[in-house]
Amino acid sequence: MTYAVWGWGDASEAPRAEDLAAVAPLVAGTTGIEVQSPETPAPLAPLRAPRCSLPSSLADLGSVEPVDRARHGIGRAYRDLIRGLRGEVTDVPDVVVRPTSEQQIVDVLDWASSTGVAVIPFGGGSSVVGGVEPRGLGPSLSLDLALLSGLVEVDAVSRAVRLRAGTFGPAAEGALKPHGLTLRFYPQSFERSTVGGWVATRAAGHFSTGPTHIDDLVESVRAVTPVGVWESRRLPGSGAGPSPDRLLLGSEGTLGVITETWLRAQPRPAHRWAATAVGNWDQGVAAVRAITQAGLQPAACRLLDPVEARLSGTRQTGEAVLVLGLESLHAPVDPAAVLELSEQAGLTVLEQGARGEAGEAWRSTFVRAPYLRESLVLLGVLVETFETAVTWDRLPGFVADVTSATEDALRRICGGGSVGCRFTHAYADGAAPYFTVVAPARRGSEIAQWDEVKAAASEAIAAGGGTITHHHAVGRDHRPWYDRQRPEIFAAALRGAMAAVDPHGVMNPGVLVG
Amino acid sequence: MTYAVWGWGDASEAPRAEDLAAVAPLVAGTTGIEVQSPETPAPLAPLRAPRCSLPSSLADLGSVEPVDRARHGIGRAYRDLIRGLRGEVTDVPDVVVRPTSEQQIVDVLDWASSTGVAVIPFGGGSSVVGGVEPRGLGPSLSLDLALLSGLVEVDAVSRAVRLRAGTFGPAAEGALKPHGLTLRFYPQSFERSTVGGWVATRAAGHFSTGPTHIDDLVESVRAVTPVGVWESRRLPGSGAGPSPDRLLLGSEGTLGVITETWLRAQPRPAHRWAATAVGNWDQGVAAVRAITQAGLQPAACRLLDPVEARLSGTRQTGEAVLVLGLESLHAPVDPAAVLELSEQAGLTVLEQGARGEAGEAWRSTFVRAPYLRESLVLLGVLVETFETAVTWDRLPGFVADVTSATEDALRRICGGGSVGCRFTHAYADGAAPYFTVVAPARRGSEIAQWDEVKAAASEAIAAGGGTITHHHAVGRDHRPWYDRQRPEIFAAALRGAMAAVDPHGVMNPGVLVG
Repeated sequence: MTYAVWGWGDASEAPRAEDLAAVAPLVAGTTGIEVQSPETPAPLAPLRAPRCSLPSSLADLGSVEPVDRARHGIGRAYRDLIRGLRGEVTDVPDVVVRPTSEQQIVDVLDWASSTGVAVIPFGGGSSVVGGVEPRGLGPSLSLDLALLSGLVEVDAVSRAVRLRAGTFGPAAEGALKPHGLTLRFYPQSFERSTVGGWVATRAAGHFSTGPTHIDDLVESVRAVTPVGVWESRRLPGSGAGPSPDRLLLGSEGTLGVITETWLRAQPRPAHRWAATAVGNWDQGVAAVRAITQAGLQPAACRLLDPVEARLSGTRQTGEAVLVLGLESLHAPVDPAAVLELSEQAGLTVLEQGARGEAGEAWRSTFVRAPYLRESLVLLGVLVETFETAVTWDRLPGFVADVTSATEDALRRICGGGSVGCRFTHAYADGAAPYFTVVAPARRGSEIAQWDEVKAAASEAIAAGGGTITHHHAVGRDHRPWYDRQRPEIFAAALRGAMAAVDPHGVMNPGVLVG
Repeated sequence: MTYAVWGWGDASEAPRAEDLAAVAPLVAGTTGIEVQSPETPAPLAPLRAPRCSLPSSLADLGSVEPVDRARHGIGRAYRDLIRGLRGEVTDVPDVVVRPTSEQQIVDVLDWASSTGVAVIPFGGGSSVVGGVEPRGLGPSLSLDLALLSGLVEVDAVSRAVRLRAGTFGPAAEGALKPHGLTLRFYPQSFERSTVGGWVATRAAGHFSTGPTHIDDLVESVRAVTPVGVWESRRLPGSGAGPSPDRLLLGSEGTLGVITETWLRAQPRPAHRWAATAVGNWDQGVAAVRAITQAGLQPAACRLLDPVEARLSGTRQTGEAVLVLGLESLHAPVDPAAVLELSEQAGLTVLEQGARGEAGEAWRSTFVRAPYLRESLVLLGVLVETFETAVTWDRLPGFVADVTSATEDALRRICGGGSVGCRFTHAYADGAAPYFTVVAPARRGSEIAQWDEVKAAASEAIAAGGGTITHHHAVGRDHRPWYDRQRPEIFAAALRGAMAAVDPHGVMNPGVLVG
């Protein structure tokens, strides 16, 4: 039962003792880190008594069950896993509320506004940036949208679907499948995150180029704010004033509770092709830049540096690897241009060909990665990721500087470890480097260790002109760097907007500019 | 001299008597409208005396010359042309200010905020929605950015360029050409509009699909607000909170004065192909939907209904015409899929082949169209356009309803006339229908006539679920319908943002939600 507080999946998916025994030598071999004896999740320590209680009209929607409260007080960052594992979850919502109708959300926000109780909208709880944690807040409630889920409407002609915010990735895909449609949107949290969470945090899917951000798929959004319902009109394109949807996208619960959205959908691709190319990092960077700047939009254009290639089990030769994939809804794909540009950049193409299920196989590995992370954590390995984006002109020095700043911090703080880098997304004007960190953890000090490493990495990102987040969102963890990054006057405008729709300041205070 | 108040181009480009004599029978033949004797532009009527004057520190930047003030008090809609032609421009700024530095903009906004003088940022003055007109305002100034122009910086590696807001289209292209780059952005106002105006109004270029909105090209924006400078970081992609740029995009001068922007640029396409296909309207709609929903992104995918085909001189056979174009930076274009889908939809392909300059030829005609409009106006023809966007599920009935509502209004108000429709832009989930109206004008009553026709068309658009503007912006003319369209709570948020950055409410009051 306590397991549900810390793990990625259900208790049934927890690594067993024999799994850990089997994986330990592999981890040691791949990471070079001496693993520790497997840790057993601790029971949840007693929580602070609730500081508020729902009015009787809403009481049926609330839960004060300790594990429920604890689970809603943390996300799924490394620091969350450690706290869950130890049962030490201190900043938890005073009550978890599960509305079954939009009117109940209106009622909850009315009550919260009148009593000053903070409201934290909760989708799948997969935040890795402290987005759902009532850190340092007074009385608070977690508004869990799980019971407001499902496919409401399909417009087969325009290929758009209306989904309730609490719909998880697999449920959304399952509901679309009979209609021959897919969102083609697979963030790594796919299994554990919701449609509303994607919109609120500007999530990105695993495709490297093209419409891979949820921003690109949103046709309209409906949200309940403390002063009323905000719903945009379904439009394929509109230049009427600043986009209402683009203000809700990334609002992280500060402007209201997203309850529904119309998303663009499409059929499954009819044609697929994939290839693997190898070379050195600079050649890989040159290839990705050439491909994106040629206007090509490969579904996969994932460049892995040698460390990332080793850590991910992709390749152990010390080479950088470029994983390429093309997809097409209609015409057969023609890989000639992508291959030509890769080879011109100096890469060697190892294998290539039409792929049926290879994309799905990679995606499956991708979405399973967080489960593997559980095993590493249990074996005393510090494992975390962080990500950014930067323009091509800055990129080479930027990746080198961020990598070396992080490696320095690991040596200083953990006595060693590795930093791998891959591109999750690529654009004509830059790329999104994603860093994986593994290091020996000092049990009991993991969070302090990681916070210090993360701060060093974040400083290097800020100094190099990158964004503190490309798709993980701001939450509470990124605030110090986000505060330096966003235009100060924009923050003032955003605060003005928040004050207008949330006059009592109860919506997820502490994230963004709150 | 007075000519500059009303015409699209310079006085040297004004239609001469012999031009009008030559064009008159063609106009009559094409539109079926009996043209009237050519009108001679009237001298500008005396203007109201300026109600404010710049402080001495800024006085050198100001102009109170009547033609200058009048030119800055109107845009380039039909109602503007008529008023300019008659010399009857009543709502004009009290002074035209031309800053030569950003600091001067800061100083102007300080002065305006302290004295309550309204500030209307002015780029090329090509607004067709009353965006630059101080309609009903108290003391106001027009802040003309023309002297803050030019290319500031080129990042050839990331293919992005930093342009000052006052740079006109041809100047921007001229400055990029030596770098082997183009913005590939051609709104119909290309010659007469500026980079800053494009961003402020969410302009769209003439390409039908793909990154054709200025929104897609913007990498970062710098703006002077009454409370300070708002500048975003150059990033290829960032999920850190709501996008600051997306709040400035479409802000129409209400949040501040855009002074610079980094835009994504690219080389000229190496490969081009074009085709023309004909059939009936429904077949054309089916073809465009099939092409966009197949994930294809043709540079041109312009569907013209039979009236539009006739009015534009494209085809007189009573058929709908689909103009297709493909472009590619790198690989040769393959038209097979576009052709196949067009023919499957029932269209007949008339001609097709690689095109070198055909795209430029069309673009040239496109950007020259406003000059032709001058001749029509002088010959007593009411000529105007309006545009929208709607999802595919609503589209067939929508276009029919808007067309017939507009035709009904023309019969009632003008005694006849024609309404043509074309798609300017197409998306997987819908299209942007653009309507052209020609009718016999009743001299002296043109504005009242058009306002009534426009209201009827706008009501039909609103009733059918379209947007009141896809790329012409809101301005003052679209307010009644925009006010019904945008989410009321979003308007509250936007007012909150405006109040934060423009506490004295001097920035372009009257547009959007002001």
